[in-house]
Amino acid sequence: MSKLFLVGAGPGDPELLTLKALRVLNEADVILFDALVNQKVFDLLDKKPELIFVGKRRGESFKQAEINASILEQLSLGKKVVRLKGGDPLVLARGIEEIQLAYDHGYEFEIVPGLTSGLSVPGLNAIALTLREKSDSILISTGHELNEDKIDQWSRAIKQGQTLIIYMGIGKAVEISKSLSKLSNSKTPVVVIENGSLENEKQVYTDIESMPQEIIDNGIHSPALIVVGEHVDQGFRTKTLTSLRAKEKIKQGVKIEL
Amino acid sequence: MSKLFLVGAGPGDPELLTLKALRVLNEADVILFDALVNQKVFDLLDKKPELIFVGKRRGESFKQAEINASILEQLSLGKKVVRLKGGDPLVLARGIEEIQLAYDHGYEFEIVPGLTSGLSVPGLNAIALTLREKSDSILISTGHELNEDKIDQWSRAIKQGQTLIIYMGIGKAVEISKSLSKLSNSKTPVVVIENGSLENEKQVYTDIESMPQEIIDNGIHSPALIVVGEHVDQGFRTKTLTSLRAKEKIKQGVKIEL
Repeated sequence: MSKLFLVGAGPGDPELLTLKALRVLNEADVILFDALVNQKVFDLLDKKPELIFVGKRRGESFKQAEINASILEQLSLGKKVVRLKGGDPLVLARGIEEIQLAYDHGYEFEIVPGLTSGLSVPGLNAIALTLREKSDSILISTGHELNEDKIDQWSRAIKQGQTLIIYMGIGKAVEISKSLSKLSNSKTPVVVIENGSLENEKQVYTDIESMPQEIIDNGIHSPALIVVGEHVDQGFRTKTLTSLRAKEKIKQGVKIEL
Repeated sequence: MSKLFLVGAGPGDPELLTLKALRVLNEADVILFDALVNQKVFDLLDKKPELIFVGKRRGESFKQAEINASILEQLSLGKKVVRLKGGDPLVLARGIEEIQLAYDHGYEFEIVPGLTSGLSVPGLNAIALTLREKSDSILISTGHELNEDKIDQWSRAIKQGQTLIIYMGIGKAVEISKSLSKLSNSKTPVVVIENGSLENEKQVYTDIESMPQEIIDNGIHSPALIVVGEHVDQGFRTKTLTSLRAKEKIKQGVKIEL
């Protein structure tokens, strides 16, 4: 019987799929997947289901209306349809719209959450998101559309010592840096991470003011996470450490003289 | 060789463990686990490792210093030690302190993120956390300690149409309701969820003003999530639906006349 499964693939490393996601992928007749999904997850499956790419890549881009049409077409054929998205399907994705679509057309649906990159990638790198008695809030937002209210909220969060996690912010890095430098402490630590959880992960430890130049110097490309906060580099007293190599040693548990 | 693995167990349903978490649990010599961990995850393991309970239950409560001592003791024995926490180990948990401990004593460590309940439990229930062109930020916070700055930040987030996710808020439900009613719209939708992802999950669909009474009437107990926001009940036009049964039908994809 037709059913839509909205599944999160997590930040990239196939091992960060949930057991439930793997089961559902194995039971799927067809999988519609995004560009952000690491296709190595398909190597984990017992059988090869039909795979349909519906993401953005090299200029080729599917509109939501086309994706919706494709979902409905597959559902009308009586299939178990998995819509696989990078990260979590309801965090800054359009998952809820696709579930609404299935619901409006009378199809069953189920949601399988995934690890959103904004929390899991800092976690993998031992970056403190909250810190007892110092920081107990996390603000997840996007750089896609900036406005005064948003910058005001971000700067307040930063001044309260909270962690601010910005998705889709690389394209607005200069504007973000300038605005936040004015309204908060320009020396607040920032970590920028591209390809989080994957072998080609790149990390830059910097601050609000220096972030745009560091992004350029280190060749960071979108999509990448920008993590801002008084405590994001304090997990291991890395305040003075900016090199990838030093951070790598710390990850491996090697003691470093500071 | 000794190593500390800080692992997130997710919101409760054992199937929401990651593949990596399951592998690491299978490789562990000893697992120190919290009260929030669903012990059914241990049924998934190939072998039975040594299990040590270090959580809070029925008055019995371990202090962080005792947990730290236990972690170090196990590491000193040359073991692969897993510290298993409910949800994600770095989101409003003290994971970073335990990693710091291992690091300070020269032990290797690794972090395996888990699904934090605040994002995954609403997701499982098709609750919109972000909505295109309407809401692109999520504020994760805790009701554990309230103050003016926090209530101010929460009410601003609500007024901007964002989703506010409050952990550990049940014990302060009346205060939260009163403060937010004054500073934002008291009719803003609220979902309260206990035992998210488990068979005994309880949900209450209410609003800021009515929340405390609904928590009492529905017998919701701590720990439970409080999810607040203009869009949290809009995924499926459930604005007028408050009964569990109606919500259950919607989850199953059954059309409901509104």
